Amino acid sequence: MARKTGSHSQITGPKVRQAASKLFARHGFAAVSMRQIASEVGVQAGALYLYTPDKQSLLFDLMQGHMQDLLTAWEAQEKGRGPLEQLEAFVRFHIGFHLDRPDAVFIAYMELRNLSDENFAVIEGLRKRYEDVLESILREGQQAGVFAVPDTKLAMMALIAMLTGVNTWYREGGRLSRDKVEAIYWDMARKAVAA
Amino acid sequence: MARKTGSHSQITGPKVRQAASKLFARHGFAAVSMRQIASEVGVQAGALYLYTPDKQSLLFDLMQGHMQDLLTAWEAQEKGRGPLEQLEAFVRFHIGFHLDRPDAVFIAYMELRNLSDENFAVIEGLRKRYEDVLESILREGQQAGVFAVPDTKLAMMALIAMLTGVNTWYREGGRLSRDKVEAIYWDMARKAVAA
Repeated sequence: MARKTGSHSQITGPKVRQAASKLFARHGFAAVSMRQIASEVGVQAGALYLYTPDKQSLLFDLMQGHMQDLLTAWEAQEKGRGPLEQLEAFVRFHIGFHLDRPDAVFIAYMELRNLSDENFAVIEGLRKRYEDVLESILREGQQAGVFAVPDTKLAMMALIAMLTGVNTWYREGGRLSRDKVEAIYWDMARKAVAA
Repeated sequence: MARKTGSHSQITGPKVRQAASKLFARHGFAAVSMRQIASEVGVQAGALYLYTPDKQSLLFDLMQGHMQDLLTAWEAQEKGRGPLEQLEAFVRFHIGFHLDRPDAVFIAYMELRNLSDENFAVIEGLRKRYEDVLESILREGQQAGVFAVPDTKLAMMALIAMLTGVNTWYREGGRLSRDKVEAIYWDMARKAVAA
């Protein structure tokens, strides 16, 4: 196969996404112009349109990429066999993955309202797939008598909100290491759904 | 005492706050102009400046009002004596108060980045006071041997994130009544911190 040298979009793509992610997270999608993104990348506004048709596509691209990365990373994750081991793996994975990507997480939660209906439906579908991962673990544990929750859907929502909340207060180099935070949240999550 | 007829600001104030809250929640603070707020209220843009000096003051006013309402409502709340009764009161109160004010809650979380440093410090102070309410309950329960959490601050953060998360999915008239949702979350919260 012929070896291709890096095309314009291969070089610019990641830079554009990185610039857009940074600016959307800092100022909000609505307040950022394509011109500002181009300036952050260091290209003319016109050059940006070689990479992306508009700002909506850029937002969708970021949010879809984030959700796909999340699902792919979970697939690749070492998980134990039983529901308890899988829940522990999920708790630690969720906290670590989200702490690694503060801008993407911020955008994923803040900018849903700015997606077109069609794009929103795609992102919601991906989000639902991720939520199903946790709900399946809870349902399996419920059937095995390891967990006792009045409602697996609400328990799933409660745990995801609790875990994602770490992003709002955790600071690297603060009072607690990531490992310690993960251990403390695992203790609370385990007890919250315990039989 | 002479009875005053409603002044301009007494009539306009609540309308301006309501309009700003609605527009900020829907489009984001950065995307909304004073002109749009005036138009929503049904006055000229110039008239808006009789009520508020600028958009930043309006945002601060909304966020400060929300936090003050929250603290006042908690003070007025019936609470039991023991830590377990107080935690139940807090869980039910937090869910109900936040479900009643979706726009204010959305703004309180989304628009922190748009506050001036000085205004941010005030809002953070009020938020800290509310967080202290829950942390005190947890600390008291910990000392009484009713709760066993590795870290009262993290348990407080985890519970608040979990409870506020209800706002992201609850729909009035949906599968579960508020009362049922409160009961399910109380079950999980209680177990999460149980000794």
